[in-house]
Amino acid sequence: MDQQVKENGNCSGRVVEGPTNPMVTPLLTDLYQFTMAYAYWKANKHHERAVFDLYFRKNPFGGEYTVFAGLEECIRLIANFKFTEDEISFIRESLPGSCEDGFFNYLRGLDCSEVEVYSIAEGSVVFPKVPLLRIEGPIAVAQLLETPLVNLVNYASLVATNAARHRFVAGKSKMLLEFGLRRAQGPDGGISASKYCYLGGFDATSNVAAGRLFGIPLRGTHSHAFVSSYMSPDEITDKSLRSADGSSSCEDLVSLAQTWLSKIQWSSSLRGIFGETNQSELAAFTSYALAFPISFLALVDTYDVMRSGIPNFCAVALALNDLGYKAVGIRLDSGDLAYLSCEARKFFRAIEKEFGVPGFGKMSITASNDLNEETLDALNKQGHEVDAYGIGTYLVTCYAQAALGCVFKLVEINNQPRIKLSEDVSKVSIPCKKRSYRLYGREGYPLVDIMTGENEPSPKVGERILCRHPFNESKRAYVVPQQVEELLKCYWPGSSDKPREDLPPLKDIRDRCIKQLERMRPDHMRRLNPTPYKVSVSAKLYDFIHFLWLNEAPVGELQ
Amino acid sequence: MDQQVKENGNCSGRVVEGPTNPMVTPLLTDLYQFTMAYAYWKANKHHERAVFDLYFRKNPFGGEYTVFAGLEECIRLIANFKFTEDEISFIRESLPGSCEDGFFNYLRGLDCSEVEVYSIAEGSVVFPKVPLLRIEGPIAVAQLLETPLVNLVNYASLVATNAARHRFVAGKSKMLLEFGLRRAQGPDGGISASKYCYLGGFDATSNVAAGRLFGIPLRGTHSHAFVSSYMSPDEITDKSLRSADGSSSCEDLVSLAQTWLSKIQWSSSLRGIFGETNQSELAAFTSYALAFPISFLALVDTYDVMRSGIPNFCAVALALNDLGYKAVGIRLDSGDLAYLSCEARKFFRAIEKEFGVPGFGKMSITASNDLNEETLDALNKQGHEVDAYGIGTYLVTCYAQAALGCVFKLVEINNQPRIKLSEDVSKVSIPCKKRSYRLYGREGYPLVDIMTGENEPSPKVGERILCRHPFNESKRAYVVPQQVEELLKCYWPGSSDKPREDLPPLKDIRDRCIKQLERMRPDHMRRLNPTPYKVSVSAKLYDFIHFLWLNEAPVGELQ
Repeated sequence: MDQQVKENGNCSGRVVEGPTNPMVTPLLTDLYQFTMAYAYWKANKHHERAVFDLYFRKNPFGGEYTVFAGLEECIRLIANFKFTEDEISFIRESLPGSCEDGFFNYLRGLDCSEVEVYSIAEGSVVFPKVPLLRIEGPIAVAQLLETPLVNLVNYASLVATNAARHRFVAGKSKMLLEFGLRRAQGPDGGISASKYCYLGGFDATSNVAAGRLFGIPLRGTHSHAFVSSYMSPDEITDKSLRSADGSSSCEDLVSLAQTWLSKIQWSSSLRGIFGETNQSELAAFTSYALAFPISFLALVDTYDVMRSGIPNFCAVALALNDLGYKAVGIRLDSGDLAYLSCEARKFFRAIEKEFGVPGFGKMSITASNDLNEETLDALNKQGHEVDAYGIGTYLVTCYAQAALGCVFKLVEINNQPRIKLSEDVSKVSIPCKKRSYRLYGREGYPLVDIMTGENEPSPKVGERILCRHPFNESKRAYVVPQQVEELLKCYWPGSSDKPREDLPPLKDIRDRCIKQLERMRPDHMRRLNPTPYKVSVSAKLYDFIHFLWLNEAPVGELQ
Repeated sequence: MDQQVKENGNCSGRVVEGPTNPMVTPLLTDLYQFTMAYAYWKANKHHERAVFDLYFRKNPFGGEYTVFAGLEECIRLIANFKFTEDEISFIRESLPGSCEDGFFNYLRGLDCSEVEVYSIAEGSVVFPKVPLLRIEGPIAVAQLLETPLVNLVNYASLVATNAARHRFVAGKSKMLLEFGLRRAQGPDGGISASKYCYLGGFDATSNVAAGRLFGIPLRGTHSHAFVSSYMSPDEITDKSLRSADGSSSCEDLVSLAQTWLSKIQWSSSLRGIFGETNQSELAAFTSYALAFPISFLALVDTYDVMRSGIPNFCAVALALNDLGYKAVGIRLDSGDLAYLSCEARKFFRAIEKEFGVPGFGKMSITASNDLNEETLDALNKQGHEVDAYGIGTYLVTCYAQAALGCVFKLVEINNQPRIKLSEDVSKVSIPCKKRSYRLYGREGYPLVDIMTGENEPSPKVGERILCRHPFNESKRAYVVPQQVEELLKCYWPGSSDKPREDLPPLKDIRDRCIKQLERMRPDHMRRLNPTPYKVSVSAKLYDFIHFLWLNEAPVGELQ
């Protein structure tokens, strides 16, 4: 990063680092942002002050809430927004040869020092139509930001919401592991997924790069290939293991495990459940235990869960127990997870009882294999003994709905409000530079979000205010808020002297997200037929929207 | 990139650059690849030579074909696979403290010089179960590669296939533009989408960064916000435009356009179609034409397509025509695209006739707005006049199926074939280090892909060969191939002296893809009820699979 960029990243005396992904540059935008910038420049209109709202129109996954994420990466881009000479050359090549030099000089000096960014805090629960970010600045610059900002917020919010929904179904007590890297949409589809699933309430990831970049706890043990790669216990050359307290040593963990295996096989309570187990699997488990005696967790479904995997695992776990080590548990990656987890639990409890090993019955059971909201829900309904879920494909690709439709709409230019009309009412934009507030009720739940004009007085605690649906005149309600929270805060003051909000660490954003989700009224959160949360405008803004709408829309003529 | 990495990237005297996305490092993998590597190392098994197949089990999007993409990025990773000291420190922190130093020294020296990579050519049409890549090498290294290789192939192939399917429905003559960056799953979800949609048959992208990285043609003009940002024609200060040949100049393009607007309004064939058009829209179009007189293309649906956008566009296009410039056309981004494109075409033709402007009727019509395979198909059925499609969300997020289930399975270790069993037959892996061939029939179509053991004689032109379904004993057929193509070629010879295939430029990969798609028998390609393409194994491999299967599977006991 060159000095110029560093200085640029500095605002209010604090340096903002560049985007996590070095591919996020001012060129990561649509060509039309440059053609428009040129046209604005050519018309000497590029400096005109515009206000854009970034928002979405519909909550994803059939739900009634969304988790907002991606803000930090947006601010990192904005703070370091500067074209290199190479980039300017490329833009020049990409535009018609008739474009004038002055424009490229303009690009050379362009940064976000004239741009102000207001945003809802990252990790907040958010709703359709309410601006997530409000970008104010010279229209040409604000337009250049459209594509990357929408890109950075869209997937981040979508996958964070997906994670929150999985957490909701799994319940608070379960461990949720994100295992999606291999199926994610590209390398940083994977890295972003790990970051934002953690933000949305997951506990850990398998993705080492994400663990390093964001400090997310890492989890993982071994795969089927590890098990298949062993042929027999004879392969293991160094079979010795020191006891956990270092006081003694076992010369042959393989034999010890084999001894335990036959004890299990002939124990009164487990007799007949299995016959000969797969010996290459036993070899793999023993080898893994020799490498990780303090954290032994085995994948038990390579051959047959109940007839091979579980008995082999228990034999190795009991051998470790003899040496003072406590095995962690098993992972199931196929089959009927509800049934198998219950059978495994019974087996573990029988071992605890039969051999007097306290805690063995509580051995952790992790389930994976194409899990999603529906399968978690089905597991809950069937009854299961799973302690942790490893979730990949459906989580990170947001298989149930692969995109959130964030948009970036011009709401004001030169202090003139603008509206975007559409025959589809849900696509009409809400004009004006606005403020927005969340109003809380007596029981502490958020009741309604309300947008007002920039200069309207803010709603006050204990004072009745009329909240109107922005487009449906019959939908309106009086609210007496018990708490009023202004939603948009300044995260990038540009050249103004407004105080700038800090970018909190990921862990704090995650905590905020979890707290906000817990504070919602339960009927907004349920999976089936959730109640829509109300989003409204003030009476004054309502009137203005409809005045502007009538003003702009052409009058039809029936023929 | 340090010197060491550069040397590492060198193989057969040719340097392979690092991955396009600098976030693709050896840490972009699952933690369990490192725990397994440690267990292998601890058991002194890490050097054992393993063979893994990377393949998928089912074609996406309900189709019967897939386009293979992502190979170049895989080879870039492999060629430059080397841990930095920082990365090794992080791995050490992430593993239990009991892990021995020797392992980290091993990681320090680790690269892919012992790994051999065989692959189908990028841009090929491929089918389930047939290995896309075969990775041979020390098991610990091959396992570390699993996650990034699967990640790099999965989405690349999925989105390339999606692009090919969109091309198939749109037809060869239409221009296909990828507009998905803002809705893609993260920044390089966007960049990868642009690359692989081009590979799959798209013509251009809006993504400037992708244009620069991969040399993909760029397209884009202006947005609704551009139109809304103008209030009236008075805003335009410099209204002059020189004629195309430089011989004359128009002092006021705004007035010229307004004159044309009233001519259109009162022309005999167009009278009554529209009344007063939106003047701020006319201002925006004129301003855009002043900036880009040689490439004027206008988005016409900000206010009302037929009553404002089209007449305004035509007025500006006719003004440009007076100065010797030829406008490019319009974009429609809402409403009934079939109907509006036909109405627009009629309007353009009427103008051509009325004002004697040759070619005006052929003005290009681009359609966008949440297009996908289904909407393209519906447009075709309704009849339309669209020349180009801008496709975003559904294309780049692969909304219809957001993941391709690529897997990476151990098929051999120390020359011992391995099989992965599953109660679900479709998940049983095909063991052995294999070769695979595509056999072509009399009419030039590919008939069947066949996998054989590494040392079996290859199928020969004109010689009858039995092709067996790998798992269904009753499905088999004799084939007399007219052409035999070996599918797996060496793209990374490791320390062997095999010749290495070149990594072709993206344009060549795209050409290959288009040619291969055209060569397929049409019934495999159709959208509704396509015929599955046959994938088979040799008689000898069939027998061996089933011998190994019986050998590994536990015998059940009914109780």
